[in-house]
Amino acid sequence: MSKEITSREEDYSQWYNDLVLKGGLADYSAVRGCMVIKPYGFALWENMQAALDKMFKDTGHVNAYFPLFIPKSFLSREAAHVEGFAKECAVVTHYRLKNDPDGAGVVVDPEAKLEEELIIRPTSETIIWNTYKDWIQSHRDLPLLINQWANVVRWEMRTRLFLRTAEFLWQEGHTAHATKEEAVTEAEKMLEVYATFAEEFMALPVIRGIKTESERFAGAETTYCIEALMQDGKALQAGTSHFLGQNFAKAFDVKFSNKENQLEYVWATSWGVSTRLVGALVMAHSDDQGLILPPRIAPLQVVIVPIFKGDEQKSLIDAKAKEIMDNLKRLGIRVKYDDNDNNRPGWKFAEYEMKGVPVRLALGARDLEKNVVEVARRDTKEKKVMNLDGIAEYIDGLLLDIQHNLFNKAKAYREEHITPADTWDEFEKLLDEKGGFIAAHWDGTAETEAAIKEKTKATIRCIPINNPKEEGKCILTGKTSEQRVLFARAY
Amino acid sequence: MSKEITSREEDYSQWYNDLVLKGGLADYSAVRGCMVIKPYGFALWENMQAALDKMFKDTGHVNAYFPLFIPKSFLSREAAHVEGFAKECAVVTHYRLKNDPDGAGVVVDPEAKLEEELIIRPTSETIIWNTYKDWIQSHRDLPLLINQWANVVRWEMRTRLFLRTAEFLWQEGHTAHATKEEAVTEAEKMLEVYATFAEEFMALPVIRGIKTESERFAGAETTYCIEALMQDGKALQAGTSHFLGQNFAKAFDVKFSNKENQLEYVWATSWGVSTRLVGALVMAHSDDQGLILPPRIAPLQVVIVPIFKGDEQKSLIDAKAKEIMDNLKRLGIRVKYDDNDNNRPGWKFAEYEMKGVPVRLALGARDLEKNVVEVARRDTKEKKVMNLDGIAEYIDGLLLDIQHNLFNKAKAYREEHITPADTWDEFEKLLDEKGGFIAAHWDGTAETEAAIKEKTKATIRCIPINNPKEEGKCILTGKTSEQRVLFARAY
Repeated sequence: MSKEITSREEDYSQWYNDLVLKGGLADYSAVRGCMVIKPYGFALWENMQAALDKMFKDTGHVNAYFPLFIPKSFLSREAAHVEGFAKECAVVTHYRLKNDPDGAGVVVDPEAKLEEELIIRPTSETIIWNTYKDWIQSHRDLPLLINQWANVVRWEMRTRLFLRTAEFLWQEGHTAHATKEEAVTEAEKMLEVYATFAEEFMALPVIRGIKTESERFAGAETTYCIEALMQDGKALQAGTSHFLGQNFAKAFDVKFSNKENQLEYVWATSWGVSTRLVGALVMAHSDDQGLILPPRIAPLQVVIVPIFKGDEQKSLIDAKAKEIMDNLKRLGIRVKYDDNDNNRPGWKFAEYEMKGVPVRLALGARDLEKNVVEVARRDTKEKKVMNLDGIAEYIDGLLLDIQHNLFNKAKAYREEHITPADTWDEFEKLLDEKGGFIAAHWDGTAETEAAIKEKTKATIRCIPINNPKEEGKCILTGKTSEQRVLFARAY
Repeated sequence: MSKEITSREEDYSQWYNDLVLKGGLADYSAVRGCMVIKPYGFALWENMQAALDKMFKDTGHVNAYFPLFIPKSFLSREAAHVEGFAKECAVVTHYRLKNDPDGAGVVVDPEAKLEEELIIRPTSETIIWNTYKDWIQSHRDLPLLINQWANVVRWEMRTRLFLRTAEFLWQEGHTAHATKEEAVTEAEKMLEVYATFAEEFMALPVIRGIKTESERFAGAETTYCIEALMQDGKALQAGTSHFLGQNFAKAFDVKFSNKENQLEYVWATSWGVSTRLVGALVMAHSDDQGLILPPRIAPLQVVIVPIFKGDEQKSLIDAKAKEIMDNLKRLGIRVKYDDNDNNRPGWKFAEYEMKGVPVRLALGARDLEKNVVEVARRDTKEKKVMNLDGIAEYIDGLLLDIQHNLFNKAKAYREEHITPADTWDEFEKLLDEKGGFIAAHWDGTAETEAAIKEKTKATIRCIPINNPKEEGKCILTGKTSEQRVLFARAY
């Protein structure tokens, strides 16, 4: 039809790129590793933002905005942090250009060199904790529950639209607390917010877990994560929430006087999700015909396509379509009537299939006579001829049904793809032939973790929360182990 | 009371800084020229954003996101544009740091030098038009009506919180059209959207006008603007909308095939408002006790302060406050009950006065017995004891009244401060003694405009839309002039 998509079987990676580009979500840009988020993709992100922002505010958080720039020396303050982030960052060294004395164009003005270089934030712990120092004196100033929606830059060598880009959009929560317990509770609460968002809005089942030390955020004591599974059997980290202990408070000397009037270092958390989630959404649900978007965050939930010959039929259909639209909008449903006469109905069907619009109504002159309409759902491709009486309510229910169906389908796939492995051969075979999460014993050392990664490209995605204890032997070393952890190859 | 504010008379500039800092809107940061927008200031900006975003969408625009970085060579493509923007920009030259071989900390890795430097966007015409080249082929692809909410950086030497910062937040609309007429109409329509927003939401009366050539946006054919007047008699440009002609289409070779199948360059507009508006808001309405915020965008519209002795009184007041809050919330009013027992009522009164909360209710035990409450409005400081029956509806009306009163007051001040001047002496005297806009004849040349600016620091703020024609003589040169233009000293 309108545009060709590579099938998943033929080339999963190309299929993904086709969907993102041809579905109108994003485009490459002239800047290496940076993408343009197109209007349709941005509308999706806006819906995700709105839902998350409401959840943050409902849990007592407020938004603020901190500088894009981080003085270079700030990065070095926290030892682990600088190791994790200094290696891949955009560095501003000058603040002016001048006309090229040798000809056309502009060149960097060597006179305008900064005394200290500025880093484009890869994450904002340092600049924020440097600010918190001025905001926190007493236990009465705590907790600080602040979130920021922002762009960040990490100079990745290999980039993928949405999944890994040099610049990306995200939110980063940075909270400050008087006690360790309160900070841990906050980190766990925000993980649960992320998990709820992923499951209820994105229809994306996730495993809530804890990262091993090697996979921990640079500067964290504990990194909590939600891990999702894509259709190719690879895992994707969909969000992280960190208990930072007193590391940043110590690095930036942030103390408060407690109720006993003693000075103590402040306890911290940070947590973030990014436009990477859009990539996860695409890969979790879509098929070889295009995107499949969960109704709750789809920019457009219903499209009505008229099928007619001549103006007379058209005007009758227009009137009925308007009536249907009004009823749908009254229920809060996002609907579009596409009567653009540049394109034929068949083209439109393929186009909205590509764009993953959950429900399509095809409204023809004969349908009108019979008081019916053809309702096609994107997820199952099922078509039904429905009576027009009460159609809005039917569609309202159908959208909910689609939302649940997407979640259940993804969850069933995920459940089928958590497989225990008890021998190394089995482990390797599962990775290569089945994919998904492999539940295996591990001796708990970073060396073994690294060796397994080196041999198989699989990493420990997480130790699930409330993981059952079970005695066993490490899949690689045979040493004793007290629990299985989840391994997978990952995005 | 809680915090001291410098009075306007004593030091207007310090008064402004005091309000921004002590009102909790923003803070200085560790990065020169960059500020931190604090939660209260950000909530204000969010309300402004929400109102503007809705107006943009209601006029057919969609949001998207383009890269933060602009390849250096892009700036040079449009001759006027590079002159305007290359001189003050942050330049990224490297993409990695490494451990300092000589000791602690990190240094720029000289091996990681970019082939072409990247500029942090000061505005996005170039990167966007480079993208539009791929998106526009036919007249069917037009118009493109796209907006972006983003951070931008202009390396200003002298900065002021909100009014002029190196990094600021803004929205920038970038539209593409098939005809000149359509593009001009769009630029004018968006100016009107800005004017409506300023007047109806910010209670800020503005003059709609056109900039002279010297004050025009670098790359525009026509720059439309809205100009507001601050309480110190200085003008402030509150928003601009540019008709860009085919300048960027030519610079980036963006052509479309028209209905006759001929290739033509695309016509463009761009338009933007920024966090600078927060500064305008502060300076337009506030007084020596603190901020005065217009109800429609105030983060908090009503605060309830309990006045009690002992738990018994407190629990009675709690119950009544909850009832009032529920009724206010039902009307969509943003209300807070401040029963924090760390602070006394007098401290709270001063604090909310400082923060510009439009309405304060003081609810005491004796009030409850009489079924009344003390209602204080922030704008006039008037206090009234009102019956509690129907109090929510009364406050709803009062908020509207405050909104109108702020606008009318600012408008009356503005009207009193548009003064005609017919001689140079009069002109200079008005500037020094009265301030405001001065309506004077000008010979229409950039030289005269520059000479007047040099002598007085006053600039031509705009030629008002539908400016009456009137023969006269230039205030400086005595040459013939066909209309008065508006001069002022400005932020």
